[in-house]
Amino acid sequence: MLASDPVHDPEGAVQRPRAADPDAIRAHLDALTKPPGSLGRLEELALRLALVYGDPPPPLRRRSVLVLAGDHGVARRGVSAYPPEVTAQMCRNLASGGAAACVLARAVDADLLVADLGVDADLEDVPGLAHRKVGRGTRDLASGPAMTPGECDAAITAGRGLAMERLGSGAEVLALGDMGIGNTTSASALTAAILGLQGDRLIGPGTGSTGVRLRAKRTAVERGLERVAGVTDPLRLLQELGGFEIAGMVGAILAAARAGRVVVIDGFVVTAASLVATRLSPAVVHYLVAAHRSAEPGHTIQLEALGLVPLLDLNLRLGEGTGALLALPLLTAAAGLLRDMATFESAGIAGPAAAPS
Amino acid sequence: MLASDPVHDPEGAVQRPRAADPDAIRAHLDALTKPPGSLGRLEELALRLALVYGDPPPPLRRRSVLVLAGDHGVARRGVSAYPPEVTAQMCRNLASGGAAACVLARAVDADLLVADLGVDADLEDVPGLAHRKVGRGTRDLASGPAMTPGECDAAITAGRGLAMERLGSGAEVLALGDMGIGNTTSASALTAAILGLQGDRLIGPGTGSTGVRLRAKRTAVERGLERVAGVTDPLRLLQELGGFEIAGMVGAILAAARAGRVVVIDGFVVTAASLVATRLSPAVVHYLVAAHRSAEPGHTIQLEALGLVPLLDLNLRLGEGTGALLALPLLTAAAGLLRDMATFESAGIAGPAAAPS
Repeated sequence: MLASDPVHDPEGAVQRPRAADPDAIRAHLDALTKPPGSLGRLEELALRLALVYGDPPPPLRRRSVLVLAGDHGVARRGVSAYPPEVTAQMCRNLASGGAAACVLARAVDADLLVADLGVDADLEDVPGLAHRKVGRGTRDLASGPAMTPGECDAAITAGRGLAMERLGSGAEVLALGDMGIGNTTSASALTAAILGLQGDRLIGPGTGSTGVRLRAKRTAVERGLERVAGVTDPLRLLQELGGFEIAGMVGAILAAARAGRVVVIDGFVVTAASLVATRLSPAVVHYLVAAHRSAEPGHTIQLEALGLVPLLDLNLRLGEGTGALLALPLLTAAAGLLRDMATFESAGIAGPAAAPS
Repeated sequence: MLASDPVHDPEGAVQRPRAADPDAIRAHLDALTKPPGSLGRLEELALRLALVYGDPPPPLRRRSVLVLAGDHGVARRGVSAYPPEVTAQMCRNLASGGAAACVLARAVDADLLVADLGVDADLEDVPGLAHRKVGRGTRDLASGPAMTPGECDAAITAGRGLAMERLGSGAEVLALGDMGIGNTTSASALTAAILGLQGDRLIGPGTGSTGVRLRAKRTAVERGLERVAGVTDPLRLLQELGGFEIAGMVGAILAAARAGRVVVIDGFVVTAASLVATRLSPAVVHYLVAAHRSAEPGHTIQLEALGLVPLLDLNLRLGEGTGALLALPLLTAAAGLLRDMATFESAGIAGPAAAPS
């Protein structure tokens, strides 16, 4: 159903956010007790938040991070430094609180939910994991479509459902993360196809591929891109080159934007899903906040294509939503400026004098 | 007394931190369930924290921000876009919760204490303000010493006392901020003198000085530097060119380092104080975490002189500890990695395989 939607907006038209007048928001920011513009990027972020949520925005203290997991057939080509079983092992680690993302979620007081969209293992016994398995890993994108159209639709729907559930439970902001051995290979191929670039420009070490593994990654991406030469339909490219968790992210992003909530995007894999979502519905980009600049070189190319400048640059290349998590306090802080700061007038403070000539 | 201390270490020798063995900390970081080095700057920060506090470090959830305020005689030369009375007005705003720093402190759950070290107004009636007034503003640094040696010592002592009080109340980390119309003029002169640079290289717009004000700022800094030509003693330079709040920061930094706690430094003014503190006691630099890169151009010169790379780059130029506040969640997150993350062994996860040749 979704794949056949002719307008490529499976959630219905996402509108450019305009919950408040941008000039009025800027005037509000300039009336606050600080030199105009002196909070730099935080003021830009406050503007974006107010456009989505209104001025003032809500406190944005209820932040939910969805880490979507899936396996990739292409991983059997030895594209990663880690064996494919690590996806399932890391899902258990994420569900039991030992992974980096869990630690960072506690540090910033965010909810974290890990969902199995397509891990190649039976994880039904893992408590605290959301079970949304569409299949046991995708097929090898180098030799054929990674997913069937039905599987891709199911994964999008699962992601949408997860996002709606988190937002329905009170989350004011959604953040996304990924887990899946081989998923930077899939994200590289998908990004190259969406942007019409050579695969080589998008390929980096991921979690640590070098030498023969990097060559295997390059070959897999090239073969995948050959298979889809001439295809421009973003849903078709997602189905051919993506993964269950990546399709789930596309659904989650579209659902959150449709619901009028900001989505904080993490690194290379989540940003690949963001490219698909914005091709399906261009106004989605106004709901996205880029958390950080990944050490994965292709991430900068993705961000430039989206026109997004990330908040952090901490040389991270882990995934799991770790970058998104670290950016969440900045959203709360930016919302707080518009909610709680005194104005020069309310505080009885002299503003800047006009400079003598 | 302090000024006459021949070893220039008024707190007694601060030792290079070595609460844990650096190789053992790195081995611990590499055993955690993530690709080695994949958390980038956060791992560097975790290493620094473990050197100061031991491995694992404490949770670092009890963070205290001290905003030190003072007036500057040089402000009467019209070096700032704001009139000098704004210092007192902003102290009231900071004490009543309406300033940017207050909002950010609530966003990141940090304590904030504003202290009057030398505001040129009677603030005794302001509740919630720490009253440590050494004088009602410094004298004009362009025409004579900003402080007497006794005033400078008293301000250092006051800052030390405030820091000890916060740490004694349970703060695991101290962060510093500034408030004082004219204080980037003072910080520019002090930085130029300490580093032996032309004043011009350190002078920027501060909170928004342009045109005639920027020229007044440049002239004031040049005259101040002419007065102290040949002086290298950092305490003497602090007394000649600094301010009550800057001297207070020097005392606070030395006290925290002596107590074995990390100090998160904010922008241009706090970093000027950090330069003085590290000249007095070089090992202090290992206790400092640079929060952000200020939009004030001279800040990058200061950070390079200290050998510190800031965590954030958000184009802030406000002061008040706003940059330091935004970096605090990163410290909690970095400490959490060493405290709470599973290892590959504890989680039963396959590590990276050796790459086939």
